[in-house]
Amino acid sequence: MSTFFNILLRKGINIVKKADIGLIGLAVMGENLVLNMESKGFTVAVHNRTTSRVQDLLEGRGRGKNIIGAFTLDELAASLKTPRIVMLMVKAGQPVDSFIDKLLDVLEPGDIIIDGGNSLYTDTIRRTRLVESKGLLYVGAGVSGGEEGALHGPSIMPGGSSSAWPIVKPILQSIAAHVDGSPCCQWIGPDGSGHYVKMVHNGIEYADMQMIGEAYFLMKNALGMSALEMQETFSCWNKGELDSYLIEITAHILGKIDEDTGKPLLEVIQDVAGQKGTGKWTSQESLDLGVAAPTIAEAVFARIISGAQKQRYLAVEAFPQLSTAPLTDKSAFLDGIRDALYASKICAYAQGFDILRHASLEYDWDLDLGEIAKLWQGGCIIRAQFLQNITDAYNKNPDLPNLLLAPYFQGVLDKSQQNWRRVVAAAVERGLPVPGFSSALAYFDSLRHPQLWTNLVQAQRDYFGAHTYGRTDREGSFHTEWQLPGNVGKSDEV
Amino acid sequence: MSTFFNILLRKGINIVKKADIGLIGLAVMGENLVLNMESKGFTVAVHNRTTSRVQDLLEGRGRGKNIIGAFTLDELAASLKTPRIVMLMVKAGQPVDSFIDKLLDVLEPGDIIIDGGNSLYTDTIRRTRLVESKGLLYVGAGVSGGEEGALHGPSIMPGGSSSAWPIVKPILQSIAAHVDGSPCCQWIGPDGSGHYVKMVHNGIEYADMQMIGEAYFLMKNALGMSALEMQETFSCWNKGELDSYLIEITAHILGKIDEDTGKPLLEVIQDVAGQKGTGKWTSQESLDLGVAAPTIAEAVFARIISGAQKQRYLAVEAFPQLSTAPLTDKSAFLDGIRDALYASKICAYAQGFDILRHASLEYDWDLDLGEIAKLWQGGCIIRAQFLQNITDAYNKNPDLPNLLLAPYFQGVLDKSQQNWRRVVAAAVERGLPVPGFSSALAYFDSLRHPQLWTNLVQAQRDYFGAHTYGRTDREGSFHTEWQLPGNVGKSDEV
Repeated sequence: MSTFFNILLRKGINIVKKADIGLIGLAVMGENLVLNMESKGFTVAVHNRTTSRVQDLLEGRGRGKNIIGAFTLDELAASLKTPRIVMLMVKAGQPVDSFIDKLLDVLEPGDIIIDGGNSLYTDTIRRTRLVESKGLLYVGAGVSGGEEGALHGPSIMPGGSSSAWPIVKPILQSIAAHVDGSPCCQWIGPDGSGHYVKMVHNGIEYADMQMIGEAYFLMKNALGMSALEMQETFSCWNKGELDSYLIEITAHILGKIDEDTGKPLLEVIQDVAGQKGTGKWTSQESLDLGVAAPTIAEAVFARIISGAQKQRYLAVEAFPQLSTAPLTDKSAFLDGIRDALYASKICAYAQGFDILRHASLEYDWDLDLGEIAKLWQGGCIIRAQFLQNITDAYNKNPDLPNLLLAPYFQGVLDKSQQNWRRVVAAAVERGLPVPGFSSALAYFDSLRHPQLWTNLVQAQRDYFGAHTYGRTDREGSFHTEWQLPGNVGKSDEV
Repeated sequence: MSTFFNILLRKGINIVKKADIGLIGLAVMGENLVLNMESKGFTVAVHNRTTSRVQDLLEGRGRGKNIIGAFTLDELAASLKTPRIVMLMVKAGQPVDSFIDKLLDVLEPGDIIIDGGNSLYTDTIRRTRLVESKGLLYVGAGVSGGEEGALHGPSIMPGGSSSAWPIVKPILQSIAAHVDGSPCCQWIGPDGSGHYVKMVHNGIEYADMQMIGEAYFLMKNALGMSALEMQETFSCWNKGELDSYLIEITAHILGKIDEDTGKPLLEVIQDVAGQKGTGKWTSQESLDLGVAAPTIAEAVFARIISGAQKQRYLAVEAFPQLSTAPLTDKSAFLDGIRDALYASKICAYAQGFDILRHASLEYDWDLDLGEIAKLWQGGCIIRAQFLQNITDAYNKNPDLPNLLLAPYFQGVLDKSQQNWRRVVAAAVERGLPVPGFSSALAYFDSLRHPQLWTNLVQAQRDYFGAHTYGRTDREGSFHTEWQLPGNVGKSDEV
């Protein structure tokens, strides 16, 4: 059927059946989204820069489906109902700009371009302005869920031209994951907010993966557990508070045996983790906003260190492994790892939501943090039971200054902090790095300690740079001439 | 004398004595640099946007000195020997661009503009190109040392148009600090390299201050030491390996009594630390370069947390302080704090120098890392005895992959790691945050552990995003269809 239309289209023959949406970029994410859309009753026109992939789709997974191949952008435009909706699923960066330029030539005012890739939000802000200036509408949509999510229902975070929302909503919500009947796709806000929220989602994902990695690392190195024992533990944890996609796939991964060696597959995988930039962007953005997100940054740095193979090789040679006493109560320590994981995870999410809260004010986006937690409950990589607690917390208090202060999370931290401390201390003494757990704990303790060391830092700044300081007993900015002789310091208001 | 010339100059009368250098921006750093230059026998022409400051200098600290006031940029240009050298000591950002634009109108090809402020190195790259395109020369010079350094001898890191170096060298080297007869000012490299090195200097400075803060925090909260006892301890530490400006001023600060309350002045200073951006830039740059600098980033985040006063206030209310057993061997623990501080400091410097090493390759700057450590030995805020060990390490092996691997530092870490672990573990158990110490320790342990958790992270990435992984037993990139049923995983080369 589609091949038939396609032939007509290529011959310039006007076809009767027009597509509901066009999609450009037939790598695995794009192709799966096409099949997802088609399965929901939409007719999809598809295009790819390397046009053989169009043919491959039509003759392969798309055979017999309501998919129209378009070998040029003119064909794509001609095949779409108006106002046209064209979704880009191409590599972030220059390819997006290039397709937008070309699409502006073949589309008309009122038509809509959706960018479903992992674009940097500042690019999306710029592109929204450009496309709107030509009379078209632009949607930057974060799409999370990997290959499987794209096919069966991702989490979608659209933002940009708000008048596009009623037009794209039926398609995007119907292809999204659903939780308790609600689609994991809601309008996020203006200009780059959709991609921004996706960026922070990914930053949280980096931290979440890092901390699951540390739990695995401690099970293996502090407790000497086998892959099978670890698989069972993660499966068991997945039935409790930690219930989440990432815990679930960790159990699956631990259960796989390598066909070639007969060992657990995980054991023959190199401990070098790649990255594609969204965790880095989240960390850099937190620094620009002045929001503390140390645990997300530590996760990014941990991936970087994993790839510094020459330094690592030489350091392993230079610093022999420690011989430390074995742990006595293994089962209690395993519970401790679970508590450390959950408490650290809460801190990483608190950091991510603090970024969103500040961004909402900074960029005037009016983000609904409870709604964002809700649409992450299905489809996306960080989907988890406990996101409902985040939604509840923000529904109860939309101005909650920090997630840790919500009663549910406060309760978890109260309950788990002793175990958390014990696990970090034991790891530190054994030479087992846990940068995520310990950074999250330092974040928690820095917030809860009534008097930090930063009076000294500020005094030093005033000493060498006259940067002034505040006093605890009165308002104002003060400076001391620290170098003057004598032991009395005068606090001069400046 | 100077007033006389000044009157002549204002009347448009040609003066005989011309200035060796012009300086724009008479805030405290600029004014002190002027006095420093003049004290070394140079005649300095000065200008300030608010011209009353010129008059103030001439009638105040500059009275009777070889300082020529210039109330306009034309006057400034007319008062200078050729090729003219004009140094900007104005706020980083737009004011620098604005003065460059105006200077290009009054200067001539061959003249030199020096920016001595804390400019972002990418701005300096751009400005070097602009100024060179007009036939003039540009020098972006990092200047460290605070007010006192500016007056008595700062550390200076000039980079940019290399043909400017022979011309500005006599002035810059003579006003710089000297260590063992060598000036703490050497040519760094092309375009933005001078400001880049200064940026990394400041990033290291953030970490150094943070970790001294943590040492103080533990002395106070884990050991219950008085300000006087802490002053004595830091004074004593300043006689050993930790000998440095920041330790020295910490002792001074701890010794000051507040005139108003009779308490140690430090105790009435608010624990809120400000920042001006160079630590943030260093962290963001490390992420862009793909270099692990977690301890520098934690120091920046710690300052951010210190200022999150509402969150902190509520968290202190929500999470009561812990009651933990007192430490038994206080004197050994104090030695432990010293070891933790020195070991952590070494890690922070290793991270900073790893940034420089990567930047040198990335931007093709051919930085001399040993020389950089040498010129930081005097004048600047992080000046310290132990920088000589860094110089020695790079002189011995210019391609040293990481400072921790140099024999001297390896020895220190071997010796101190047990105490370091003990201190971090004790702090963690007592609810005392030490983000710098624990991040540095995790950095060290991540480098030295032979098998990290990042095989799991990479397996997860392959699971949900088909990002592929490497194997430990053969070359290539592999992908597994993890979701396939059964417990055998096939490792397909891709």
